[in-house]
Amino acid sequence: MSTPAQGAALRVAVLISGRGSNLQALIDAIADGQLAADIVAVICNHSDAPGVERAEAAGLATYVAVRRDFASRAAHDEAMLRIAQEHGADLVVLAGFDRILSPAWTQAFPNRMINVHPSLLPAFAGGINPKPQADALAAGVKIAGCTVHIVTDDVDGGPIVAQAAVPVLPDDTVDTLANRILAQEHRLLPLVVQWFAEGCVRLENGRIVVPGVVPARWWSEV
Amino acid sequence: MSTPAQGAALRVAVLISGRGSNLQALIDAIADGQLAADIVAVICNHSDAPGVERAEAAGLATYVAVRRDFASRAAHDEAMLRIAQEHGADLVVLAGFDRILSPAWTQAFPNRMINVHPSLLPAFAGGINPKPQADALAAGVKIAGCTVHIVTDDVDGGPIVAQAAVPVLPDDTVDTLANRILAQEHRLLPLVVQWFAEGCVRLENGRIVVPGVVPARWWSEV
Repeated sequence: MSTPAQGAALRVAVLISGRGSNLQALIDAIADGQLAADIVAVICNHSDAPGVERAEAAGLATYVAVRRDFASRAAHDEAMLRIAQEHGADLVVLAGFDRILSPAWTQAFPNRMINVHPSLLPAFAGGINPKPQADALAAGVKIAGCTVHIVTDDVDGGPIVAQAAVPVLPDDTVDTLANRILAQEHRLLPLVVQWFAEGCVRLENGRIVVPGVVPARWWSEV
Repeated sequence: MSTPAQGAALRVAVLISGRGSNLQALIDAIADGQLAADIVAVICNHSDAPGVERAEAAGLATYVAVRRDFASRAAHDEAMLRIAQEHGADLVVLAGFDRILSPAWTQAFPNRMINVHPSLLPAFAGGINPKPQADALAAGVKIAGCTVHIVTDDVDGGPIVAQAAVPVLPDDTVDTLANRILAQEHRLLPLVVQWFAEGCVRLENGRIVVPGVVPARWWSEV
């Protein structure tokens, strides 16, 4: 759905709000030769987010766009969108981004925006104020996980691209569970972006098909 | 919660409606010495269910109680309950049982009834007419699974005892996915019944704690 021009690397814009550890996973995968993509822009909506330093340290084009510096949510949204578009992004990655973007984004990047969500969707969908790891723990599930999905205007409801499962252990706190899930996010996200780089992510009847490239057991490692 | 008397094996009543393959998994686990329990009664609500033959072939006390042979749902329900009680069951296992039992059951066996559900609850809860495997496939999830949970009057909402995950593969049909999940049900159910036999299933703040006996990686095998 987002095959770059022949020979050109996939151009990726990454939106972050916090630590940027999923951004770091992409940076590392590119450095390791596991991911054939260029991160053309990093956009963060908090000026003090540690992820900004990570992005700058990696020499990436880094933008801070704080909501309060714009007259409206729409203006903020549009300014960020323009950055992604001006950098010619093929794929937009929401990597711990804490705001819901306007339909202008999904129109500009139809089926070319992905989000990482720390639950096995459709369980523990987030919405505006997500705490999926805490909700999973409170629900007493014994298996939790994470999901990479296409962003549509149905929040957390877009087609699922990939999922990874982790066990919930008896002594887990929200933090220990969240960290176990996060470790899987760091593995899942670069894999999915590489699938996009290879142009092998297809949408059929509203479901994602990734033919022949899902390592059947990879998600099973704890 | 259901520790049998010192030295006595856990007395288990199993309710089935169809093939009885989960019943067979219990029979096999007992025969292999993996499960220290006695199946004291098998109750089936369909006269032509293949599981009836399995139960009889294993020499188990087997009862067929068909709804239409009783004046009311309550009378049917009560007749089955009486069988379980008369056999002194410590634990009731719903193994593919296709009717929702009355609160008389949960009162008679509080926290001592378990059900096997072919999804990673709370996703794809079933209710009256469940088709969780088909629903999971239609939703495009990449990880599915099964759940053993305590039966309460909240259908499919009781505390989760154990879960197992399986991948959804690109060419899956409802049948191939259901079979992959079923194979995990066959592993999960005897394990959970053995936990009950060992008296190590505790309910704390509405959540099940199984201290120290969850093989952290066992669920990961596909």
